[in-house]
Amino acid sequence: MIGAGYWGPNLVRNLSEAPGGEAVAVADLSPERLAAIRKRFPAVRTTQDHRELFADPEVDAVCIVTPISTHRALAEEALAAGKHVFVEKPLAGTVADAEAIVRAAERAQRTLMVGHTFVYNPAVTSVHGLIERGELGRVQYIDSQRVNLGLHQFDFNVLWDLGPHDVSISLYWLGEEPEWVQCIGACFVQPEIEDVVFLTMGFPSGAIAQAHLSWLAPSKLRRMAVIGSKKMAVYDDTEAAEKVKIYDHGVESLSVEELRRSYRAGDIHSPRVPVTEALQLEVRHFIECVRDGAVPRSGGEAGLRVVRVLEAGMRSLRQQGARVTYREAAPV
Amino acid sequence: MIGAGYWGPNLVRNLSEAPGGEAVAVADLSPERLAAIRKRFPAVRTTQDHRELFADPEVDAVCIVTPISTHRALAEEALAAGKHVFVEKPLAGTVADAEAIVRAAERAQRTLMVGHTFVYNPAVTSVHGLIERGELGRVQYIDSQRVNLGLHQFDFNVLWDLGPHDVSISLYWLGEEPEWVQCIGACFVQPEIEDVVFLTMGFPSGAIAQAHLSWLAPSKLRRMAVIGSKKMAVYDDTEAAEKVKIYDHGVESLSVEELRRSYRAGDIHSPRVPVTEALQLEVRHFIECVRDGAVPRSGGEAGLRVVRVLEAGMRSLRQQGARVTYREAAPV
Amino acid sequence: MIGAGYWGPNLVRNLSEAPGGEAVAVADLSPERLAAIRKRFPAVRTTQDHRELFADPEVDAVCIVTPISTHRALAEEALAAGKHVFVEKPLAGTVADAEAIVRAAERAQRTLMVGHTFVYNPAVTSVHGLIERGELGRVQYIDSQRVNLGLHQFDFNVLWDLGPHDVSISLYWLGEEPEWVQCIGACFVQPEIEDVVFLTMGFPSGAIAQAHLSWLAPSKLRRMAVIGSKKMAVYDDTEAAEKVKIYDHGVESLSVEELRRSYRAGDIHSPRVPVTEALQLEVRHFIECVRDGAVPRSGGEAGLRVVRVLEAGMRSLRQQGARVTYREAAPV
Amino acid sequence: MIGAGYWGPNLVRNLSEAPGGEAVAVADLSPERLAAIRKRFPAVRTTQDHRELFADPEVDAVCIVTPISTHRALAEEALAAGKHVFVEKPLAGTVADAEAIVRAAERAQRTLMVGHTFVYNPAVTSVHGLIERGELGRVQYIDSQRVNLGLHQFDFNVLWDLGPHDVSISLYWLGEEPEWVQCIGACFVQPEIEDVVFLTMGFPSGAIAQAHLSWLAPSKLRRMAVIGSKKMAVYDDTEAAEKVKIYDHGVESLSVEELRRSYRAGDIHSPRVPVTEALQLEVRHFIECVRDGAVPRSGGEAGLRVVRVLEAGMRSLRQQGARVTYREAAPV
Repeated sequence: MIGAGYWGPNLVRNLSEAPGGEAVAVADLSPERLAAIRKRFPAVRTTQDHRELFADPEVDAVCIVTPISTHRALAEEALAAGKHVFVEKPLAGTVADAEAIVRAAERAQRTLMVGHTFVYNPAVTSVHGLIERGELGRVQYIDSQRVNLGLHQFDFNVLWDLGPHDVSISLYWLGEEPEWVQCIGACFVQPEIEDVVFLTMGFPSGAIAQAHLSWLAPSKLRRMAVIGSKKMAVYDDTEAAEKVKIYDHGVESLSVEELRRSYRAGDIHSPRVPVTEALQLEVRHFIECVRDGAVPRSGGEAGLRVVRVLEAGMRSLRQQGARVTYREAAPV
Repeated sequence: MIGAGYWGPNLVRNLSEAPGGEAVAVADLSPERLAAIRKRFPAVRTTQDHRELFADPEVDAVCIVTPISTHRALAEEALAAGKHVFVEKPLAGTVADAEAIVRAAERAQRTLMVGHTFVYNPAVTSVHGLIERGELGRVQYIDSQRVNLGLHQFDFNVLWDLGPHDVSISLYWLGEEPEWVQCIGACFVQPEIEDVVFLTMGFPSGAIAQAHLSWLAPSKLRRMAVIGSKKMAVYDDTEAAEKVKIYDHGVESLSVEELRRSYRAGDIHSPRVPVTEALQLEVRHFIECVRDGAVPRSGGEAGLRVVRVLEAGMRSLRQQGARVTYREAAPV
Repeated sequence: MIGAGYWGPNLVRNLSEAPGGEAVAVADLSPERLAAIRKRFPAVRTTQDHRELFADPEVDAVCIVTPISTHRALAEEALAAGKHVFVEKPLAGTVADAEAIVRAAERAQRTLMVGHTFVYNPAVTSVHGLIERGELGRVQYIDSQRVNLGLHQFDFNVLWDLGPHDVSISLYWLGEEPEWVQCIGACFVQPEIEDVVFLTMGFPSGAIAQAHLSWLAPSKLRRMAVIGSKKMAVYDDTEAAEKVKIYDHGVESLSVEELRRSYRAGDIHSPRVPVTEALQLEVRHFIECVRDGAVPRSGGEAGLRVVRVLEAGMRSLRQQGARVTYREAAPV
Repeated sequence: MIGAGYWGPNLVRNLSEAPGGEAVAVADLSPERLAAIRKRFPAVRTTQDHRELFADPEVDAVCIVTPISTHRALAEEALAAGKHVFVEKPLAGTVADAEAIVRAAERAQRTLMVGHTFVYNPAVTSVHGLIERGELGRVQYIDSQRVNLGLHQFDFNVLWDLGPHDVSISLYWLGEEPEWVQCIGACFVQPEIEDVVFLTMGFPSGAIAQAHLSWLAPSKLRRMAVIGSKKMAVYDDTEAAEKVKIYDHGVESLSVEELRRSYRAGDIHSPRVPVTEALQLEVRHFIECVRDGAVPRSGGEAGLRVVRVLEAGMRSLRQQGARVTYREAAPV
């Protein structure tokens, strides 16, 4: 693992606990962070020179958990050294960088996976199953709310901070790439760093997806609703017991009067969702893909698609929320 | 009262119960509806000719509860006959018609009020008080969700059906008119009738307001959040006990780690809100304004502003959600 | 109807709206209350002499909505006059009085019904259906919470005020009479008037039912859980959208670790419950029983059983919560 | 630490992370469990002979996390060896054993602490502060619900399994010992092992406390309400964001009609509660008490009081829920 910040220790712990996984070594520039790693994981080697990991034959795969701007260089170097690579999300800060990493992995014939942990979340995969089996009918739109009191970042906005979650989940659920992207935002705390955005994507199937992303709300919302022609599924990550709820339309049998007075039209079902940690499932998936050569659910191409949406979103933001074409997305 | 459909009987009942109010006569084209009114309100006269109301010296004010396209002609006629006028929301289907009604009321020097009931709702006025007293700090944005399984209309879309609520409340809370409007939507059930829209307004103060309006979700949402620089207020009309909740930021005292793990940053306060019916408060306000000559909270100008936003929203819809100027709003 | 207090107007309104029903006359000692009835229901005759109702051949049935201590005399008089009788709950203040009313109805061969409105509530009948169809398995116990900030009564305690609801619902659901009753209570606001009690009933099937009744809590709870050997049903009357929820056990498939960490063991299902007013359903049922001679769901015997439980509960209260036999219940 | 079962690793981890704490050695009869400990905590010594811990001069304190029946012998041995002792809850299975342990600690002049983790829970201490500062007024009663789908035990009932939590919290909050105890229960899954009980305690101040404990409900409840003469506090451990809520009475200003229609009488306040793990706070408290010689919040006497209540509860259970005197509690 390169980078031992906030998220790193979680990754080391999950790698150690996963069958077939072993945390071998951690590289970071900060001696304090490395000391903290050694205290908590006495069996893990530490170094300030990440190149030692590339040279180490015991190391099969490298996890890059560093600032976004360093992803491309580190990933290319690791792939050139013949390592499989796991990159924290988002894959890169530009489409150009993300494409370069994907191409490098193809050339090196190594596994590339992006840390879109939510697509391994049991609640998210449960909703994916509902959509795939046609239980919701045709998906009409996804409405997503991801707000909290933010750890305001100085080098990127809330779209890049929270957006990767909603975009990766939405693309996974819909199984298609958007045709267009719109993004309206505002900057309240720092100039030119949006702290609230409304991101909309339009898809070839006719579906749309909207995400409200904000660093300004002192109470967390983590809610995604998938509105289908037959049923609606709601995934609310702040719910302790009912993370997924499915709402029947059931409207045929209702009188207009009944519909006006009711809070809901049909039955509600909440399937039990396993409590397994998503990060553990993600790490196991990575190990299996490395072993079998399979393409990860959140592989390089999937990660690239997310970066394309974010970059298109930035272009739209700079044009007052005008509709921009997804495919033409180019550096802002 | 002219028009005895779904909403009419509620108005008659509330007029009868209001101090100083008396329901004198009801006009409707349908003999069945009039019979239903007579059964429930034996003291009320009924007629198929609304002109009888205009000629009746006992009638001080006329309530127009008819399809939107008839509002202008009926209101102008009533005002010309010297009656005070209450018009169901929205005031009219075009800015031109709405302006004509407002001008007619000015000429006739009669009270004109629009049935934006929500601005009389005790929870809505409670949030207005919080904003006015500065308790939330500077308002940054309003996020609103108004969705349900719709009674799909054939002549207007969800923006005109549900939008008047969120627009009238937002303008009341912010006390300013928007500078620009954007509206992104989609049509799933009927062609060219949007059944889901995302409406965004930008204000001179820098605040923005977004409303997610939909007829497609089989479970009601009626939630408006006002995010301020100091606190956030949430008004959720589907909550039985806690319709208004105020969330402190309280972020100064929290470590980054604490903030990541918490579902909220500070204290939460839920003031008790009276359970008085909003329609009763609205009717009393109308009677008082008629008596005192005061401008109603939801007077003609307020109703006109709502129509301006809706018409601008229609223009933006037709331009794929591009930003349109509020003031230039002209017939689509 | 005799008695035009708080609850009376609701009954008159529902009687007027029920097919086959007509509110003919209302008797009350207070001229003010009668005036209020006339204002709201101009077609209803009023009188200060309730005997006029007994003599009126147009009156088929009499509704007694007066203080409990007057129920017996009024019911006996009405039955003797050949009227069908509806008595507000509880049927009487003692088993002796309740038995006398039941015997009088038998002799007069008239319908006797007690106003246990909740057994007509769509959510309550929905849970009854689940039990009857065996969906919950064997019912093990019922746990009930009915608390609010009380309108403290001076002549009876919280057991007699709120208890009739939980007792009538529990007996209806279980379809059996208890073998024993225990009741623990305390008096905080007035001496010798319990304002919180915990009432427990034991049944021949082995099931038990407990109700926590209180006037001391400033937030309403209206929650009844039926724990069965296969599933649990929860009826929460304060829930706007999900009044009934059914929880699967689903425990076979869960590891111990999973069970410890989960908030629930299996799927949750919330059937849609019609929003029809229970009082309207009750009034229709009364009219049908009068017409067909059928025994009402909340007939005299059912009402008598509730009084037996309450009286046994009083005996237990006076004996510090000792177990008392239901059948021996005698005046305290 | 002696005993490396389900709970043990949590304790080792928290001891390692606590300032001034160090996990030195773990004893368990099972080589598999010891291997699991070594894998997760490579720096901790393991042994199958717990006496090695007593002999080890590096060991200051021993944590006994073994079946209840072994607590007394192990604790006496450890204290005789001069070690401070932490015993998992409940302190012992009988009052006699609990008293013996308390006396042994007194003789040895060593710290004795019982693992009543909940009295260190930030939400529980927050409610304690409210009571202590008089904010709730005079405490009238505590109503507690602790139910889930149980890991049915074969040697003790739900009273001994879940009861220690509610009893220890209630005694901590009220700051007094009960005068009497009543306990009504039933056995559904195994004969003579109660899987649902209703435990009631009466206190010298007049307050009462009831706990509904059950292994039969497939959905977790962890809710304790403290009803005071001025306000009510509710601690709900299943709530992600609002673990503590305070409800004002505020009844003075309400009309009877208003009170009937409202779901609550006054304002609601939810103070922010830190998210610190209770076990970490407990472990730190133990280390401080060992160092300073202070009596722990959940010291030997506190643990003994809990056992007294549980034993009295067993006596009441055997007498059909009759009231038994707390102080006379003797072996069943």
